[in-house]
Amino acid sequence: MTAFRCKGFMAAGVHSGLKADGVKDLGLIFSKTPATVAGVFTQNQIKAAPVLIDQKRIQSGVARAIIANSGNANCCNGEQGYRHALEMAQVAAQHLKVAEEDVLVSSTGVIGEPLPIQKIRSAVPDLNRTLHSEGFDAFARAIMTTDTVPKIEHRRGAINGQAYNVLGVAKGSGMIAPNMATMLCFICADLAMSQPLLQSALESAVDATLNRICIDGDTSTNDTTLILANGCSGAFIATPEQADEFQQLLQDLLSGLAIKLVKDGEGVTKCVDVRVIGATSHADARKIAHTVANSPLVKTALFGMDANWGRIIAAVGRAGVPIDPDGIDIYFNDVQMTKKSIGCGPEAEGKVTRVLHKPEFAITIDLNMADGKASILTCDFSLDYVKINADYRS
Amino acid sequence: MTAFRCKGFMAAGVHSGLKADGVKDLGLIFSKTPATVAGVFTQNQIKAAPVLIDQKRIQSGVARAIIANSGNANCCNGEQGYRHALEMAQVAAQHLKVAEEDVLVSSTGVIGEPLPIQKIRSAVPDLNRTLHSEGFDAFARAIMTTDTVPKIEHRRGAINGQAYNVLGVAKGSGMIAPNMATMLCFICADLAMSQPLLQSALESAVDATLNRICIDGDTSTNDTTLILANGCSGAFIATPEQADEFQQLLQDLLSGLAIKLVKDGEGVTKCVDVRVIGATSHADARKIAHTVANSPLVKTALFGMDANWGRIIAAVGRAGVPIDPDGIDIYFNDVQMTKKSIGCGPEAEGKVTRVLHKPEFAITIDLNMADGKASILTCDFSLDYVKINADYRS
Repeated sequence: MTAFRCKGFMAAGVHSGLKADGVKDLGLIFSKTPATVAGVFTQNQIKAAPVLIDQKRIQSGVARAIIANSGNANCCNGEQGYRHALEMAQVAAQHLKVAEEDVLVSSTGVIGEPLPIQKIRSAVPDLNRTLHSEGFDAFARAIMTTDTVPKIEHRRGAINGQAYNVLGVAKGSGMIAPNMATMLCFICADLAMSQPLLQSALESAVDATLNRICIDGDTSTNDTTLILANGCSGAFIATPEQADEFQQLLQDLLSGLAIKLVKDGEGVTKCVDVRVIGATSHADARKIAHTVANSPLVKTALFGMDANWGRIIAAVGRAGVPIDPDGIDIYFNDVQMTKKSIGCGPEAEGKVTRVLHKPEFAITIDLNMADGKASILTCDFSLDYVKINADYRS
Repeated sequence: MTAFRCKGFMAAGVHSGLKADGVKDLGLIFSKTPATVAGVFTQNQIKAAPVLIDQKRIQSGVARAIIANSGNANCCNGEQGYRHALEMAQVAAQHLKVAEEDVLVSSTGVIGEPLPIQKIRSAVPDLNRTLHSEGFDAFARAIMTTDTVPKIEHRRGAINGQAYNVLGVAKGSGMIAPNMATMLCFICADLAMSQPLLQSALESAVDATLNRICIDGDTSTNDTTLILANGCSGAFIATPEQADEFQQLLQDLLSGLAIKLVKDGEGVTKCVDVRVIGATSHADARKIAHTVANSPLVKTALFGMDANWGRIIAAVGRAGVPIDPDGIDIYFNDVQMTKKSIGCGPEAEGKVTRVLHKPEFAITIDLNMADGKASILTCDFSLDYVKINADYRS
């Protein structure tokens, strides 16, 4: 795999012993210069200790490093968990020779088990020693839980002829629902911009991408998306137009990561774009898309490649927003399966079944009421999803 | 099995050809005398034709018969579906020699496939001929879809020394969520009471029982619960106290059916009572119980018999009602697993794992805020649930 770089940033990933079998479980991202920071976090009221710490620390607007572990969520561990999260950052800060407050911390894994802090403490020297401008692949592997592949996206942009890089790393394949920052995602950018512009660009880009995917409708306690912008490329965003352009590029990068997250969802065999159009508002459209995308009956039918549009229309009807029950059209890619809430017959079903055999397709639901629309990327519910989650901790 | 009876009622179930392999798929309940009728129906905005017809017909307050089929939901079939549902009732009325408007109709099965009305028309003579006071087992079998066992409950009560019977039949093992009448349920009572009292008793009893179970969180388009009270026992409810007593008996009967529905849920291996206490209101408690009971991650952990309380507390945190994130206690039966949102350690986990190996148990979540409480009966999410629903139509 091509080694992506982002000027002034280094990364590393090592095995600390949190996970078995010698796989990487501890990662570090470091910026050579102070970086502007922005973040979005889980909406779950139960928040892991690292989330509580990062929410405070990014208020300074500046950060230098992120230390992240997999194998343990450090959530519901009380005051000891909070102290351990602070200690993770503190140990990293010592070795990096930066202020403790400029180090952010992130954890993912099982909730409610004490964090073996000694293993992390012992592994930090090795982590620090292996920091490298091409270390992002190692970092991406170190934050994986049930993910089967590391997830990295890279984009290049330019401002006034000055090229810059944006590099994003994400993890997550379960406990994903579209009402937050979705799992862990860390973005490095070597351009410079003001903190408010960076926060605004991140929020817009996340809302259009990571907040529009769903795997199982469960919302994690640890979801975190952080972006560091260190200015090392020399590119500097000064105007609202430049900020818009950057936001588009960031959205494109996060969209790439979002697709990778869904495709690598637990046990996933299908990646399906659920599009609702013709709703009375975008919010209504989103609520319906969310209900369809999360329906276990729809998701098991997708796994079975069954053109069971009745389950889709039943999910539309229970979404809690007003609809015309006799006015719904449903398409699988461009094949119409349902017209005014009535099936289009066996010939249409034959064509739809062929669409359902593809690994990726779109389901479009036209409510024929007004112009509200929304889309959510979802996946099927497979036998492997159940196997993975029944055995997760064993 | 003991043949249950209810005075003045007869029932039957036959094979009409809607389902393959000669299994019963068409049922009839008949009251020798006009019966007072009450009903509750699906909250889904997409409603099957029989639901629309029954909603109108029960407004007369009187009914004589219910004809019900499995194998086809007669939903999303447009005007033709509506005509077919009327015709089902009409053909039954002809043979029973009663007014067409006094026959109710109900369907369950696949959505969006035209109802083969000719098969039903041809089978009604046979259905009428086999009506019998001990025909409820045949009826219960005729309305089964993925159910593996027929579900009948019987209770006896007395008013002023006059004994009466209540007999309930239900079906449903998927597309079940706790915000409606839940699937098909038909109740015969041989006492007499006013329509408003009957409707009120039914609504209260359903809310406490059938509306408190969940299998997959999907809400059907066909859910119907009907009760007929024909007075043939001679018992007559005259006072509010007698009505209360009857409502308790009805609730007890529906509770029996609700437990049977959950235990026979698609692929179910565990029947779990999710109890939330200490909430700021009953409504808040119910919302949290509903979120936990529907979480795919909680349900797969139940299947895996994994004491993964982190998933429970994460579901509590995303339920959308205010909680104290550091004040939650969780019990499995009487074993405390979580105290003030922190795990109670390996010894507690060992005991909890033994509880998880039982087929039935309770999870109690104490929010330690106030006195609001609610409970929902749920089940696990198993490999068989996915298998059943991936292959449902094939």
